[in-house]
Amino acid sequence: MEEFLQQAKQSSRIIANLSGEIKNSVLHQMADALVENNLDIIKQNQKDILNGQQNGLSSALMDRLLLNEQRIKAMSDAIHEIAALKEPVGRIIDGWVTEQGLNIQKVSIPIGVIGIIYESRPNVTSDTAALCFKSGNVCVLKGGKEAQYSNQIIADILQDVLIKNNLPKECISLLPDSSREGVANLITQDKYVDLIIPRGGEALIKYVCTNASVPVVKHDKGLCHTFIDKNADAHMAIEICLNAKCQRPGVCNAMETLLVHSNIANILLPALYEAFENENTIMRGCEQTVKLLDIDAVTPEDYDTEYLANELSIKIVKDLDEAIEHISKYGSGHSECIISEDYTAVNKFLDQVDAACVYANASTRFTDGAAFGFGAEVGISTNKLHARGPMGINDLTTYKFKVYGSGQIR
Amino acid sequence: MEEFLQQAKQSSRIIANLSGEIKNSVLHQMADALVENNLDIIKQNQKDILNGQQNGLSSALMDRLLLNEQRIKAMSDAIHEIAALKEPVGRIIDGWVTEQGLNIQKVSIPIGVIGIIYESRPNVTSDTAALCFKSGNVCVLKGGKEAQYSNQIIADILQDVLIKNNLPKECISLLPDSSREGVANLITQDKYVDLIIPRGGEALIKYVCTNASVPVVKHDKGLCHTFIDKNADAHMAIEICLNAKCQRPGVCNAMETLLVHSNIANILLPALYEAFENENTIMRGCEQTVKLLDIDAVTPEDYDTEYLANELSIKIVKDLDEAIEHISKYGSGHSECIISEDYTAVNKFLDQVDAACVYANASTRFTDGAAFGFGAEVGISTNKLHARGPMGINDLTTYKFKVYGSGQIR
Repeated sequence: MEEFLQQAKQSSRIIANLSGEIKNSVLHQMADALVENNLDIIKQNQKDILNGQQNGLSSALMDRLLLNEQRIKAMSDAIHEIAALKEPVGRIIDGWVTEQGLNIQKVSIPIGVIGIIYESRPNVTSDTAALCFKSGNVCVLKGGKEAQYSNQIIADILQDVLIKNNLPKECISLLPDSSREGVANLITQDKYVDLIIPRGGEALIKYVCTNASVPVVKHDKGLCHTFIDKNADAHMAIEICLNAKCQRPGVCNAMETLLVHSNIANILLPALYEAFENENTIMRGCEQTVKLLDIDAVTPEDYDTEYLANELSIKIVKDLDEAIEHISKYGSGHSECIISEDYTAVNKFLDQVDAACVYANASTRFTDGAAFGFGAEVGISTNKLHARGPMGINDLTTYKFKVYGSGQIR
Repeated sequence: MEEFLQQAKQSSRIIANLSGEIKNSVLHQMADALVENNLDIIKQNQKDILNGQQNGLSSALMDRLLLNEQRIKAMSDAIHEIAALKEPVGRIIDGWVTEQGLNIQKVSIPIGVIGIIYESRPNVTSDTAALCFKSGNVCVLKGGKEAQYSNQIIADILQDVLIKNNLPKECISLLPDSSREGVANLITQDKYVDLIIPRGGEALIKYVCTNASVPVVKHDKGLCHTFIDKNADAHMAIEICLNAKCQRPGVCNAMETLLVHSNIANILLPALYEAFENENTIMRGCEQTVKLLDIDAVTPEDYDTEYLANELSIKIVKDLDEAIEHISKYGSGHSECIISEDYTAVNKFLDQVDAACVYANASTRFTDGAAFGFGAEVGISTNKLHARGPMGINDLTTYKFKVYGSGQIR
């Protein structure tokens, strides 16, 4: 393992200094190679599908796992799009001349070697590899075991393109030892690995944060709230809440708890109830809510639960301050929304709620790299440091200070 | 401990929303309070001095520990200067409108609760407390045991000012349990602590990085090189090398290894030898160097050693590539310098050497917040993520995305 990571580190020096022209040419070749080899990919993917059937994977997971011609075309298109993104390396982020006449430039550079641990669809393998390559980083990928054959063939195809271009194949690697010990090893090799990005379940992320000596930017859960203020536009409130909960309930930027100002609850909650009933949403309410609506009471755990399902907790709060207090206690710092026509309330909410994304009058479902306009996204960081919220390709860079002198001494 | 950190977390919500006007007024009061109470500070400092004498601290350490009227005035002035810095919170870092009409603002906000572990002069206590307060962060300070009485009285005086201004005293706290267990506890409380900044010896930093679950921005060692290229200005080369090694040998941005291009070594090294001899620098040379100069040979460990003293390794390299290779192997990613009049060589060095600060024709001693023009500095980060190199007050902030919508759904 140490030898492998040493190779990865050395390769990172080569890839860091490639021109955008070369990187983009290689990316387009990779995109084409996926389509050209789609029969091989489908063949390997079938092994994962068979294993999945034997292991009784849920139909939702089986669907995420499946690759077909159309999906491989989409993976290929995503790489073409990443190639078309603006060059992330070498941006002059800041620059100035000091009193002593030093010309200082703060310049974006690749991070180095990035380990990415994920439990997801095989397309994450090609997306992530392309994002890291475009930003001049070596990636060490550890995908889910259920997709091992698919991930392997995708990595092999991308590596073939690297080799054809006389680039070290280690630029895009699967972690050679994908056991728990392999992961434990990876996250403590701070000599060779510069960043770990864990994406996945709470247990995985907790494990990585507790045991890594390499810096971690985690992509953790979202426990998102929407607060309907007393002078919200009722129609807008219903539209946004329905969207935030029901459009795709299994994602991290979906709403889990609805907070309603007590002044508006009597009028608004019955209409909301009807709307959610039409979407078959399972609702649970606070003590006051269950007096108004025919739903079960929340348990103490509900406010702390990321349902990832079409389920919703509803709580009536006496004012904005109680809403902010509730969010501060239960929120995961992901995405929080106020629906209000009140200028002062909106500003107070956006200022005082501590989350990566705070919304006024828009669905929390917009917390997403593409929706933010970043092009392809690495994911959604729940870290406070380095990158927070939707993480674009520029967040896969760090910086150095280039200092141009003319003989200055202190 | 958990109760204490819970208080700290709660206080962070209050301090995060203070106006710049209030923060600056409190800071000026703190600065004045240090001067007003200087007799008390000196009295407590004398206890540390006495303990230091009994424990046989070196005279250099004793000097760093000592506080007198003049030094307390300097601490006070530093706080006034921090108050005068531009407000770091609420900067609009970026902003745009998406295709769907969402108005997105990327806004700087405080990080939250910052734990700072240091083994240094008592003035670090007041400097760090002021920097954290100005940037809206709660700080939990763990200073060196040798300065415990000094640190305690300084913290008490600053807390008194907080209390007079009806602010929670937890905004500036010393770690209540300053034992090794106390530190171990602090760095794993990711629920309450947002960032750990360890400054100090390698062992401390290694310990923190290995055991923390809280994100760490470390302030580690500097193993800095200067490379004299074949067509360097000889006079400039000697001036810069002398400054980089001798002006203050005990600091992290001082040069440890001098690399000299073989084409220029015969001419330049004798002059450099004489200059360093005049400064009583202990020199050690590579195989080729010891043929030219009457000095000892380097041992294999020398290239890996941060001397923090007036000692220097000298190595003759055959070209720029060998210099870059050597730095890539032994450098700590802190500050690296090329002295050259060759346009292409300078650009190649600045591009390919991976360090926080890369210099052309200036002393590495400039790696410093004040020299960079940041005003007061938090320190010099040897992390690659979040903040790299000299760390100013803006690096004590993170950001949130404020999204202003008008009913948008996906």
